[in-house]
Amino acid sequence: MNTRPSARFLPRLARARAEILRASADALVVTHLPNIRYLCGFSGSAGLILLTESRCVLVVDFRYAASARSLIASNPELAEGLDLVVPAGSYDETLLALLRTSGASRIGIEAAWMSVSRFNWLSSSLAQADPAMEGRPAAIPELVPTERIVERGRLIKDGSEISTLREAARRLASLALEVPGLIREGRTELEIGADIDALLRRAGFERPAFETIVASGPNSARPHARPGPRVLQRGDGVVLDFGGVYDGYCVDLSRTVQLGNDRPEYRRILEAVAEAQAAAIGSVRPGIPASAVDAAAREILRRHGLADAFGHGTGHGLGLEVHEEPRIGRPVAGLPDVPLAPGMVFTIEPGAYVEDIGGVRIEDDVLVTEAGCEVLTRPDTLCDVGG
Amino acid sequence: MNTRPSARFLPRLARARAEILRASADALVVTHLPNIRYLCGFSGSAGLILLTESRCVLVVDFRYAASARSLIASNPELAEGLDLVVPAGSYDETLLALLRTSGASRIGIEAAWMSVSRFNWLSSSLAQADPAMEGRPAAIPELVPTERIVERGRLIKDGSEISTLREAARRLASLALEVPGLIREGRTELEIGADIDALLRRAGFERPAFETIVASGPNSARPHARPGPRVLQRGDGVVLDFGGVYDGYCVDLSRTVQLGNDRPEYRRILEAVAEAQAAAIGSVRPGIPASAVDAAAREILRRHGLADAFGHGTGHGLGLEVHEEPRIGRPVAGLPDVPLAPGMVFTIEPGAYVEDIGGVRIEDDVLVTEAGCEVLTRPDTLCDVGG
Repeated sequence: MNTRPSARFLPRLARARAEILRASADALVVTHLPNIRYLCGFSGSAGLILLTESRCVLVVDFRYAASARSLIASNPELAEGLDLVVPAGSYDETLLALLRTSGASRIGIEAAWMSVSRFNWLSSSLAQADPAMEGRPAAIPELVPTERIVERGRLIKDGSEISTLREAARRLASLALEVPGLIREGRTELEIGADIDALLRRAGFERPAFETIVASGPNSARPHARPGPRVLQRGDGVVLDFGGVYDGYCVDLSRTVQLGNDRPEYRRILEAVAEAQAAAIGSVRPGIPASAVDAAAREILRRHGLADAFGHGTGHGLGLEVHEEPRIGRPVAGLPDVPLAPGMVFTIEPGAYVEDIGGVRIEDDVLVTEAGCEVLTRPDTLCDVGG
Repeated sequence: MNTRPSARFLPRLARARAEILRASADALVVTHLPNIRYLCGFSGSAGLILLTESRCVLVVDFRYAASARSLIASNPELAEGLDLVVPAGSYDETLLALLRTSGASRIGIEAAWMSVSRFNWLSSSLAQADPAMEGRPAAIPELVPTERIVERGRLIKDGSEISTLREAARRLASLALEVPGLIREGRTELEIGADIDALLRRAGFERPAFETIVASGPNSARPHARPGPRVLQRGDGVVLDFGGVYDGYCVDLSRTVQLGNDRPEYRRILEAVAEAQAAAIGSVRPGIPASAVDAAAREILRRHGLADAFGHGTGHGLGLEVHEEPRIGRPVAGLPDVPLAPGMVFTIEPGAYVEDIGGVRIEDDVLVTEAGCEVLTRPDTLCDVGG
């Protein structure tokens, strides 16, 4: 079920414009690159968008002029709705000129992504007289910090995003079946990490979504250990955490393998984490707060005496970024705890890390559905609640 | 010539403290991860430092507690000079409590790296009464935007950094000798990119320093094209730009190869860029502004009628980041144009990009010496000026 390719970006722009109004602004400077890619498909390493009620101006530098032009030429909806500016000077000088002539009076900026330096420079430059204007200065637009204007749209994946994420997860899950075969006594973490990265490439991923984790033996007790020269030994627990970027979208998966099955104290942790993950997946349904999924995992680990061994959150949203909303964790003052809704995609990855025994993490990616969730990284599993 | 391992971080901390005083502050919140790594060696994906005159507090979360502890235990100078805090709550809440009890009154923040959201939250929270304090509130510390406090130290590499960068560049240069052998008619850009990434791993790099560029034929005219499914054809120019991270430090190199040598109009561009690069390398010496190196390359390309074909800067600093100071480009208002000094390391990578003919880029990494520069990626070449 694909949406018409011509109806991908315009609805996203419309949603962002509605959020701009809700923030009592009449324009938005978009500087966060994943937000730029979301709004118009541009995927360079630099650029910005000025979005007003009537215009969407994409600013890219010389390096990306040709690719931005061909992006626009190949998308009829962009050809209508997007103006391209390739400045001679710096981004900030170009932006300043655009802001001065935009006609907007309250211009939102993405406060989570704009630096204090840039904000202060833009604000103070706007307040100075425009050398290009003679006579009486025009009204000076005000920069207004805003939060999550584009992100709120990105929380709910649309049809084309779900297709991409589903395909990415299918590829990742099928690659993951080959990973246990890489785990053998005498191999190093680094060798196994390099093999996983090669599998990711071969499976069609553009690149790993983050630095692949292979944490064996005592290293497994460190949730974010980097692969090192340690040689795997019998009895080791090995945490493997890897992900890939497919057509711009990130998927992420962890498996934990025991080399030989002769340490019951480690086995107990493995089983507890598996149970916690199943409980968390089973809890997913529209309407509950994201933190309820975290609580479901945490409650199982608590019953197994592992409450203190689980120091990170249960999961994070996936999309154009490998860590995005929703945050699946304990409620924290000041951070959003969104109610789950169909179309959200996130990881469920409880873990337990016990010094002297080892660590375990099990992670899958789920899509919230009307009835519960679809486990994207286990294409044979569909978790419906109720009926 | 190694410096004593015990004298690596303390001089860096001392230099940062001197810069803090120069900025009329009495403390600094360090949030930029490469700056944190520079000051104490911690290389996790999250963390912060509060640096005051008497203390250096490293805050890391649960995930990194074990690795931070072993880092400190293995470095006598850190065991003396660094306090570790592993908070139960969020980073920002922990930071707020540290700021309130720091005794500092003007606390610098890294304005280039702190978001407007975080700055506003910290400032307004500081201004509120501390619920932990009864009775009369203590003096409220002020947050002060600062620029380049740690970066100014990072500009000049110390002995251990130069050893690392020299070894990284030697490995990259020797790997680059194998790259022309990968370029054959019928292969795709993606295949060649994957081969280069595998060579990087085999050469001991932790990871590519950025997404490897293989841009062939018409794609070569796009300075930052990503490798795609395009099949190489006879006559193609192929721009290859790749780099690696070695013990945390980044090196970066570009070569341009012509498949068959039958297009004199392309050959002419190649030779012009090579000449521009040689001129830029030859111009490097202490005391000249960084922009003079850019001007040297630009002047040669201008003489060849390629002034408009060179749309990016001539180079960028290398170190814990793949793009750091010094910026080797045209002078731009508001951006530093530092005088070169021994110990600076940067790329020299002029290019020319001509639609319908193709693009060329040639890049090496240099270390500024007392007499001129050492070309790190051509270990047999030393460029002295004068004598």
